[in-house]
Amino acid sequence: MNKDELKSMLSAVADGSLSVDEAVTRIKLTPYDDIDIAKIDTHRGVRQGAEEVIYGEGKTADQIIKIVNHMLENSAKSVLITRVSQEKAEEVAKCVKLQYDSVSRIAIAGDYIPKKEKGNIVIATGGTSDIPVAEEAAQTAEYYGNNVKRLYDVGVSGVHRLLDNAEVLAGAKVVIAVAGMEGALASVVGGMVDCPVIAVPTSVGYGASFGGLSALLSMLNSCASGVSVVNIDNGFGAGYLASMINSR
Amino acid sequence: MNKDELKSMLSAVADGSLSVDEAVTRIKLTPYDDIDIAKIDTHRGVRQGAEEVIYGEGKTADQIIKIVNHMLENSAKSVLITRVSQEKAEEVAKCVKLQYDSVSRIAIAGDYIPKKEKGNIVIATGGTSDIPVAEEAAQTAEYYGNNVKRLYDVGVSGVHRLLDNAEVLAGAKVVIAVAGMEGALASVVGGMVDCPVIAVPTSVGYGASFGGLSALLSMLNSCASGVSVVNIDNGFGAGYLASMINSR
Amino acid sequence: MNKDELKSMLSAVADGSLSVDEAVTRIKLTPYDDIDIAKIDTHRGVRQGAEEVIYGEGKTADQIIKIVNHMLENSAKSVLITRVSQEKAEEVAKCVKLQYDSVSRIAIAGDYIPKKEKGNIVIATGGTSDIPVAEEAAQTAEYYGNNVKRLYDVGVSGVHRLLDNAEVLAGAKVVIAVAGMEGALASVVGGMVDCPVIAVPTSVGYGASFGGLSALLSMLNSCASGVSVVNIDNGFGAGYLASMINSR
Amino acid sequence: MNKDELKSMLSAVADGSLSVDEAVTRIKLTPYDDIDIAKIDTHRGVRQGAEEVIYGEGKTADQIIKIVNHMLENSAKSVLITRVSQEKAEEVAKCVKLQYDSVSRIAIAGDYIPKKEKGNIVIATGGTSDIPVAEEAAQTAEYYGNNVKRLYDVGVSGVHRLLDNAEVLAGAKVVIAVAGMEGALASVVGGMVDCPVIAVPTSVGYGASFGGLSALLSMLNSCASGVSVVNIDNGFGAGYLASMINSR
Amino acid sequence: MNKDELKSMLSAVADGSLSVDEAVTRIKLTPYDDIDIAKIDTHRGVRQGAEEVIYGEGKTADQIIKIVNHMLENSAKSVLITRVSQEKAEEVAKCVKLQYDSVSRIAIAGDYIPKKEKGNIVIATGGTSDIPVAEEAAQTAEYYGNNVKRLYDVGVSGVHRLLDNAEVLAGAKVVIAVAGMEGALASVVGGMVDCPVIAVPTSVGYGASFGGLSALLSMLNSCASGVSVVNIDNGFGAGYLASMINSR
Amino acid sequence: MNKDELKSMLSAVADGSLSVDEAVTRIKLTPYDDIDIAKIDTHRGVRQGAEEVIYGEGKTADQIIKIVNHMLENSAKSVLITRVSQEKAEEVAKCVKLQYDSVSRIAIAGDYIPKKEKGNIVIATGGTSDIPVAEEAAQTAEYYGNNVKRLYDVGVSGVHRLLDNAEVLAGAKVVIAVAGMEGALASVVGGMVDCPVIAVPTSVGYGASFGGLSALLSMLNSCASGVSVVNIDNGFGAGYLASMINSR
Amino acid sequence: MNKDELKSMLSAVADGSLSVDEAVTRIKLTPYDDIDIAKIDTHRGVRQGAEEVIYGEGKTADQIIKIVNHMLENSAKSVLITRVSQEKAEEVAKCVKLQYDSVSRIAIAGDYIPKKEKGNIVIATGGTSDIPVAEEAAQTAEYYGNNVKRLYDVGVSGVHRLLDNAEVLAGAKVVIAVAGMEGALASVVGGMVDCPVIAVPTSVGYGASFGGLSALLSMLNSCASGVSVVNIDNGFGAGYLASMINSR
Amino acid sequence: MNKDELKSMLSAVADGSLSVDEAVTRIKLTPYDDIDIAKIDTHRGVRQGAEEVIYGEGKTADQIIKIVNHMLENSAKSVLITRVSQEKAEEVAKCVKLQYDSVSRIAIAGDYIPKKEKGNIVIATGGTSDIPVAEEAAQTAEYYGNNVKRLYDVGVSGVHRLLDNAEVLAGAKVVIAVAGMEGALASVVGGMVDCPVIAVPTSVGYGASFGGLSALLSMLNSCASGVSVVNIDNGFGAGYLASMINSR
Repeated sequence: MNKDELKSMLSAVADGSLSVDEAVTRIKLTPYDDIDIAKIDTHRGVRQGAEEVIYGEGKTADQIIKIVNHMLENSAKSVLITRVSQEKAEEVAKCVKLQYDSVSRIAIAGDYIPKKEKGNIVIATGGTSDIPVAEEAAQTAEYYGNNVKRLYDVGVSGVHRLLDNAEVLAGAKVVIAVAGMEGALASVVGGMVDCPVIAVPTSVGYGASFGGLSALLSMLNSCASGVSVVNIDNGFGAGYLASMINSR
Repeated sequence: MNKDELKSMLSAVADGSLSVDEAVTRIKLTPYDDIDIAKIDTHRGVRQGAEEVIYGEGKTADQIIKIVNHMLENSAKSVLITRVSQEKAEEVAKCVKLQYDSVSRIAIAGDYIPKKEKGNIVIATGGTSDIPVAEEAAQTAEYYGNNVKRLYDVGVSGVHRLLDNAEVLAGAKVVIAVAGMEGALASVVGGMVDCPVIAVPTSVGYGASFGGLSALLSMLNSCASGVSVVNIDNGFGAGYLASMINSR
Repeated sequence: MNKDELKSMLSAVADGSLSVDEAVTRIKLTPYDDIDIAKIDTHRGVRQGAEEVIYGEGKTADQIIKIVNHMLENSAKSVLITRVSQEKAEEVAKCVKLQYDSVSRIAIAGDYIPKKEKGNIVIATGGTSDIPVAEEAAQTAEYYGNNVKRLYDVGVSGVHRLLDNAEVLAGAKVVIAVAGMEGALASVVGGMVDCPVIAVPTSVGYGASFGGLSALLSMLNSCASGVSVVNIDNGFGAGYLASMINSR
Repeated sequence: MNKDELKSMLSAVADGSLSVDEAVTRIKLTPYDDIDIAKIDTHRGVRQGAEEVIYGEGKTADQIIKIVNHMLENSAKSVLITRVSQEKAEEVAKCVKLQYDSVSRIAIAGDYIPKKEKGNIVIATGGTSDIPVAEEAAQTAEYYGNNVKRLYDVGVSGVHRLLDNAEVLAGAKVVIAVAGMEGALASVVGGMVDCPVIAVPTSVGYGASFGGLSALLSMLNSCASGVSVVNIDNGFGAGYLASMINSR
Repeated sequence: MNKDELKSMLSAVADGSLSVDEAVTRIKLTPYDDIDIAKIDTHRGVRQGAEEVIYGEGKTADQIIKIVNHMLENSAKSVLITRVSQEKAEEVAKCVKLQYDSVSRIAIAGDYIPKKEKGNIVIATGGTSDIPVAEEAAQTAEYYGNNVKRLYDVGVSGVHRLLDNAEVLAGAKVVIAVAGMEGALASVVGGMVDCPVIAVPTSVGYGASFGGLSALLSMLNSCASGVSVVNIDNGFGAGYLASMINSR
Repeated sequence: MNKDELKSMLSAVADGSLSVDEAVTRIKLTPYDDIDIAKIDTHRGVRQGAEEVIYGEGKTADQIIKIVNHMLENSAKSVLITRVSQEKAEEVAKCVKLQYDSVSRIAIAGDYIPKKEKGNIVIATGGTSDIPVAEEAAQTAEYYGNNVKRLYDVGVSGVHRLLDNAEVLAGAKVVIAVAGMEGALASVVGGMVDCPVIAVPTSVGYGASFGGLSALLSMLNSCASGVSVVNIDNGFGAGYLASMINSR
Repeated sequence: MNKDELKSMLSAVADGSLSVDEAVTRIKLTPYDDIDIAKIDTHRGVRQGAEEVIYGEGKTADQIIKIVNHMLENSAKSVLITRVSQEKAEEVAKCVKLQYDSVSRIAIAGDYIPKKEKGNIVIATGGTSDIPVAEEAAQTAEYYGNNVKRLYDVGVSGVHRLLDNAEVLAGAKVVIAVAGMEGALASVVGGMVDCPVIAVPTSVGYGASFGGLSALLSMLNSCASGVSVVNIDNGFGAGYLASMINSR
Repeated sequence: MNKDELKSMLSAVADGSLSVDEAVTRIKLTPYDDIDIAKIDTHRGVRQGAEEVIYGEGKTADQIIKIVNHMLENSAKSVLITRVSQEKAEEVAKCVKLQYDSVSRIAIAGDYIPKKEKGNIVIATGGTSDIPVAEEAAQTAEYYGNNVKRLYDVGVSGVHRLLDNAEVLAGAKVVIAVAGMEGALASVVGGMVDCPVIAVPTSVGYGASFGGLSALLSMLNSCASGVSVVNIDNGFGAGYLASMINSR
């Protein structure tokens, strides 16, 4: 609420056209529901264009059920839950209508019919082991209505596999480059396309990969323009951001 | 060039409607000019939508002059040069028409009339010391025709300064959050807006800021969705990416 | 014992009003009980205002029982034991009267009736996963007679949740800010209050959170004044220190 | 402003006892002055009990003069400026009435008569080289009206020097322990006193001290209760926090 | 395909001696087989002199079987699979003819009769615990037809064991030095021989070995000439490279 | 063998008083036994004053049995084996006469009657959890005939416990200081004694102790003279070195 | 000297055909000249196939002159000196015949006519700023008689520049890949060639390149086979090793 | 002072044979002189067998002069000052009789005639650049009356230089191994001798030596027994400890 809006609202209070209680409600900036174990941001759909997402890793099945039910009972039609293990998903599914994908570990509660209409997001991986992170990105992007093209196992040590798919890349509005080990995929892709590249370092590797640090540093130092980086293994973050950019 | 295009071009060679030499030229994928000290990517404007940019830090004034002149003599109307010291800029300016800004250390060679027409990019900084990096981002974005709003010194330890500018943030199509020390600006901004946030950690700070590492890690771990990160002090990268997203 | 006290005590020995044995005892500065597996600091209650606390992590149930019993048999009315697993607590409870809380993993041996009288300590967390560390702080502070207000899941990516509780924060004599990932909570809270803020980084997070390092660095670099930091996940340390400050 | 206050204020608007303009001003939460190069937090004195402090390191003499003058012309009687080099201080002193101390690099603008009335803060250092950081803490604390006792060069490798001053420590309401190298001072002091200990790691040392990292980690891992840590070399932060605690 | 070849091929198309389809196939640079879970590089044998190798760690038995069968059904006579656990090997062996070695965790699918004809590769280890990594190198080198001499447990703290084998080392065309802990083996060996030394740091050790980091840094800093380093525990990489050098 | 000895030996060959074969044997500097899985240094007793010790961690029970038996069958009267788990010890004990201590995880094969005659080695620990590492040091030192005094749980946060044992420390010829967390014990002890102090950092701790890194850095930066450091948790190394120094 | 040679030499002593003094000289394994400031390895040419090289960085002009003159006066025809600044080179050139190259900072003392006959070594760099390190490698390789092809500024963000030079790479017997920032060049090149690739990380970059650490980790984690790594900026090491491999 | 001594002293007070004042003096454990800028430990000669040493790095010439004069005026005959630059030494020499060595940067104030009588300390370095650190160790040891043998430039990449000096090493009572880069010297020496080895990592090196970290880790992980480590470049610490051990 800006100064002018505030002034006109207060004038409405002054001239009696707005009740004090109504004004109080309007002024209290952004409400949320406090359900003891969490403060659910119910206006996030309005403020940020997307309902709150549940990060499943640190939560019990019970906690997830409680939060999901609260959200479904209120405004939400469906709820995206990330990082859910098979076991936890099965437990949650006893109480909540749930779709679950064991590769991406993404669960979707409620009635959900993805549209996948928005322009192309291309998701490329360096190897086969990066697929789970890539799928977290892909299914997140699809949940938000994006059309996703998968380009897996196109790592830079066989650069012809990338070049052979230059057309697919050229058709992208955003590219997500998912790679562990040396993480060079982001730079090579970044040099081939004319759109934003979201780099996702993965913890795939051993020894001096130091849990994804090598790929992370590599991607941050990319000499290609238009590349930015999210946290190690953060497929959700990349998919969500790609959807945001795709909607511009 | 895709398979079908290739096939039809080869058919043209077969039926004589295209000469062999012409075909050779077309097939040689992406040309560049080799001027001894550098291989200048002359088709980048076509392939990536923006001419090659010169990173001035590791180059002598002579090298910059040579590259700039080559580019201006060929297709480029103007050339963006980043990380140029005052001294180097003065030397280059003896041989090349140059605009120079000493805060951002950005130089622009050639005839350049920025349009600044594309929708809003908001650039926020945590403090006063982050301004040089922010200006590198701002002037890069302006070079590529974007409208930029500056919101400097709105660090999270006085969060009302940010909230007071909620409207400015709400009007952004992309936000660039520039901060050193604890780098928390990106997360708070990320929670306030409905658009991509590009986080730029800076090397501003001392002690356990470890040259920007603290801000970098903080930004990578942001719990706000829609945030991605570029290298420490990489104002150019953020400005360029913001322009890309703003053009979507 | 200072020089003057020493002189007057020795004069008492010289004039026979104090026996040699008594003097020996008084001079031996700070006694402790050596029970083989540990040297229990029996005068700590006098010297530091609080009995020694048992750090349960590296100790067996047997060792804990031995130390607790020794303390209860001597001066202590109750003993605080931190970092006790459910299993260990159950084993100890067979031999010692014990209250146990499985979230904070705190056990209290002996007869304990917390007073919770001293002015307000507010404990805020960034998310739901930070609650166990926050509870270790909260229950420690309550054990020492402090009144604790909990403000959980108020992370900076939804800064309105914090602002909505500005009053609660304003009423605090000390605030404990508990957060993992980017750890920005401490800075935002630090800018909102006029009292000491104790920042507790947690190991909550993944990837580039590096086991709490990101939050730790972020908190150490806080640009808000009045913020200090304890070890990663050190809820006890924060609760104890908050109690000390609250008693000033 | 809380809900009830808001309601009663709005009622005052509704019944005409408060003008709309006045209400607008009251609602705009926390104002600040925007002087182009900085957003000066003019209500900080009210909100946090102390005027804004200028961190001098990243600012030019000109910038400091501008900010100081703006503050003095408004509410402030004096302004604390930290990390000011001798040269910069001399330049600032041409335009602003300034007291300067070259050891602590602290400058105070305006008319300032420290009271030094509040109870004891003891500041101890491990060695002679830690004195500049200690003095930054000491003079900050004195600026805010605290009585400071200095205990320099009492490092733990000659622990009798500490013990010999046990009385001084016992009389403290807060202790600031300043040490580089192995940073053990905080733990030993922490075990001797019954009050909060603020540990300040310094960058004093060489080799494996890694710019203060060794002392920092050592202090964070202190096995003594009541110890918290600020950033490497952050004397100001320690002095400010000590003053806050001393005022409880 | 170089420019001249391209020209002459296009001329062949122009004069009809080459069909358009044939030309398309030739131009498509480097083909691969896309079998859904992986893009198998079928021309690698031609391009790089060795068939693609399967890194078994991140793959299920099913995935390995699918890839191996595809390769055997096409050009490959045998397939090298590294980092295969005993259990996975047994599962794969149900569907594929397999030789397995549990020390090196190397599996070889298909009909394989190693020749071991090429000149000497000497593989030395610092201790007994480094043998698994050394065997991965040794059996990789043997797979590619090299003659391998093993020199195990010749660490530098008993340097006479190395000197006593000076002759064996002198006969080498390449030496692979495998060591954990302080990793000094590479330097001492490097000073004794007149051939390339490939250093393999291992994760053997504890405490400040930090998972092989100590050995890695030590080897990178080797003051002996002719030493280069591969990733921690990367026996395969060392064996493959040694074979390449041995074939020069 | 020095030049003069070599000359006189060669003269003996020249005049026939020494056979060629005998000379060959003498010249071959330091022999060892190659038992396939290891190269046992049989002359180490002569060269270094102590038989080779078996580091049990990376070895199977079978390997240990083989090496021990070979050593006992040759010159050794007993063999020290470190880092042996209870299970492995029981398996070895089926084939070899073995004494085993489960705290230090030290096993001694063969007939062993420790003398414990050599002057005092004092072993101090910061806490109870450091005892296993301290016992590895203590029992190693006792194995080599030293008299060991244990001073456990005397950490610096209760410095009176150390001072109360000043006499014990004063009587030491070497002190071993074992501590995790902040590792300050070494510095305080180092300032109290007039003999070498061997500092052993332990991995005891959590959070920012980073597996012993904090204690390690702290000890390396000790401002007390006469302190040196061994690897994290390296009780054996400290005990062995202390014995060496004690024998001077 | 091996056992058989030793035996036959001793037999020669026994039968008088070899004098004792002569034998002593022969047995003294590898001689060196001790010129006070250094122990020059005069037999290295024999043992390792190349004379000792002087690392100029830590040495004064005087020390270099002394060592060079000693070497030239004895067996050496020319001496390679690395890391020599312009100033130091000029000082040395007053006393020694010297060729100096200011880009590579390589100096060659004595009469030197490089042959450059041995098969191709290709040296590629990611950017222009990597050229000094590349030239150190190139001129080292040329000094040892190798034919070197330079391929500068072919970084992976414009991968067509590399592909366009596929033929040059295909003709290499060894490739040296020199790159800073993300260091991805090594992986891409490694996937294109059938020969050893020596990766040289450079300290070129800023922010999260951490002085070459990013490129170093990236190269160590290369998913291409046949890649090994030398120290950051170690052009000499790469050039020397390439020459060794090229001579196989 | 132990309990019995205390008792008998107090009895003496009781029976009048000891005055109260005398008793006070005796009880005050360890005195020091407080000269404002430092607390000089005047009894250290008694307690630790060596006068306090001045670490010159962080001190001004004035401060050094003040401390030295105070010490010389009291008990000390001479004072050892380490890390003194040429310039500072010259300034100090104006007021104090001073011997100065510019390689080791050691200054000795007062009348000093080193005896160099105690048994052999051998100091070995890996290279020429390690000599300044080695000389700090050597001259410290000589100051305390030890006989020192220097063995410089015997790095492990030319291991025959070490073996050739095996006799010198064999005659040592303590060895100090000084090395940068890979720091392997300590391990090789440790395996050759039967006495304590003090390892001193140096900051000599570049790239991945990370200011001595590589050598430090290498030495801490030494597989040779009897090796302990001091801080990077800490020649004084090694020399002092060696002297302590040599005096046992």
